Amino acid sequence: MKALRFENNQLKLAEIERPNAENESLIRVTKSGICNTDIEIIKGYAGFSGTIGHEFVGVVEESSDKYLIGKRVVGEINAGCGECEQCLQGDSRHCPARTVLGIINRDGAHAEFLNLPTRNLFVVPEEVSDLQAVFVEPLAAAFGITEQIEIYPETRVAVIGDGKLGNLCAQSLALNTKNLFFVGKHQTKLDLVKGKNIETVLLENAAKLNGKFDVVVEASGSESGFATALDLLKPRGKLVLKSTFSGKTNLEMWRVVVEEFTVVGSRCGKFAPALELLKNNAVDVESLVSEELSLSEGVKAMHKAEEKGVMKVILSM
Amino acid sequence: MKALRFENNQLKLAEIERPNAENESLIRVTKSGICNTDIEIIKGYAGFSGTIGHEFVGVVEESSDKYLIGKRVVGEINAGCGECEQCLQGDSRHCPARTVLGIINRDGAHAEFLNLPTRNLFVVPEEVSDLQAVFVEPLAAAFGITEQIEIYPETRVAVIGDGKLGNLCAQSLALNTKNLFFVGKHQTKLDLVKGKNIETVLLENAAKLNGKFDVVVEASGSESGFATALDLLKPRGKLVLKSTFSGKTNLEMWRVVVEEFTVVGSRCGKFAPALELLKNNAVDVESLVSEELSLSEGVKAMHKAEEKGVMKVILSM
Repeated sequence: MKALRFENNQLKLAEIERPNAENESLIRVTKSGICNTDIEIIKGYAGFSGTIGHEFVGVVEESSDKYLIGKRVVGEINAGCGECEQCLQGDSRHCPARTVLGIINRDGAHAEFLNLPTRNLFVVPEEVSDLQAVFVEPLAAAFGITEQIEIYPETRVAVIGDGKLGNLCAQSLALNTKNLFFVGKHQTKLDLVKGKNIETVLLENAAKLNGKFDVVVEASGSESGFATALDLLKPRGKLVLKSTFSGKTNLEMWRVVVEEFTVVGSRCGKFAPALELLKNNAVDVESLVSEELSLSEGVKAMHKAEEKGVMKVILSM
Repeated sequence: MKALRFENNQLKLAEIERPNAENESLIRVTKSGICNTDIEIIKGYAGFSGTIGHEFVGVVEESSDKYLIGKRVVGEINAGCGECEQCLQGDSRHCPARTVLGIINRDGAHAEFLNLPTRNLFVVPEEVSDLQAVFVEPLAAAFGITEQIEIYPETRVAVIGDGKLGNLCAQSLALNTKNLFFVGKHQTKLDLVKGKNIETVLLENAAKLNGKFDVVVEASGSESGFATALDLLKPRGKLVLKSTFSGKTNLEMWRVVVEEFTVVGSRCGKFAPALELLKNNAVDVESLVSEELSLSEGVKAMHKAEEKGVMKVILSM
């Protein structure tokens, strides 16, 4: 089968053996989405080697659960050991022995087929299209913020970063608060949330809002976003960090101490609430798609995804 | 009057005019304590110029409240505007217009006299000695952690840093949890908490405890303490940052995102609970005193406080 792989520091489309289900489920991938983490990985983040990609929708071909065969599914990307404290609490996202689809010790989704533990799969409701379903993983990551901190209608929230993840954070958190400000460098990208009860602010004008927010979500992926986030927060405010960088970052952590901020690292969220949001059309994801390419054009698609101004690039199998 | 001042990038003992109470209270300082923040300030942290020092005990000489005259007091170091949202909620520690004793726009405590707003003062119970009372401010800062995060008897807590602040954090948090581990580089300093139901661990042996803590308090004042703290935390654990550094620090913030840690900046605490702890002899502070010098020897005392192995240096007026 075809698979987009990162090996020996090189990205390439390869012909590899098709996996089999073993004790898990084998999924024929229909579409996959290119995430910034994929781009970080081919820069060396996480030291991953293998098939990249973790956002997908597909159809179950073989499974330890016969009911799932032929069903359209998405999948939780963290595959836990099933036995540790975290897994026994039903949350494999922090299992120390976990593999992660296309990120840690498990071949990923930019391929014709993939394997995942059967318990990781979620059947996609028929109201949700394939294109929408590819967004379940990043939307879960965005909406997962509400698992970690409380956001009420009066909570003043700013989301920094008008890329894909920032957009999903802004849209999904705006369902919880009446006071959502979306800060970014590009008016055209900010405009994607028009009509969603979200106030958009160009970064160059953001200073007037300094010290006004209870919660700031940093999803810009740039080091300077951290400083901007601290500027926007009230004392004792909460900074939610969504961006993962490789290596060390240079940060004024003394400001966190002096202003007694809380910094909350936030990575993955739960799939079920995200599927529910898509089913109810509460969040618009289609407008984030910049381009659809075939898996055969995977290398080109990755380069496309790195271009300025490009939002989500989708691969179709 | 004599005052230990940092001006034009120089530390010196100066003869300056004695302040008067104006609308505040005038306090004759009896003893003051040298804090690591004082040492950071003479390295340029916070850009402060004036009389340094913020830990003190003294006697009220003049006051807008006649009842206080002649009383032995300690004082909350943040002097708020009294009118903003924060001040009206009774917490001037985050008033944006605040001055801070010996730190921001207000002459400090290493002097014969100081001024503070009358509402900042706390009468010292007679059970608490002058030497103990000097520790109210740092003890409040240590115990203030319990205002920010919940610590239960079963919560596994590690405190990193066997200096003064780390010691006070370890002692005061051990009143809330049965599982307090105190991590430091010096067995002699760790031994100061003997008999307090605290497990001491040399830093070189700490790796065996990696991933075992719900809460880690970083009070080592060193950049490497941040990485050690992340090593010790369970996924989704809480890192309490007590150390203030000048400038930017190089941190692997991606680990905070991937492990979904929460980082809580923690600076000041409330004075009343700290006075109560001292009154009840719940925390031993006298063993932290390395040396007492007179204010006239202030410059020497500051250099002493910077020496390796030295804990608290006290100035007597």
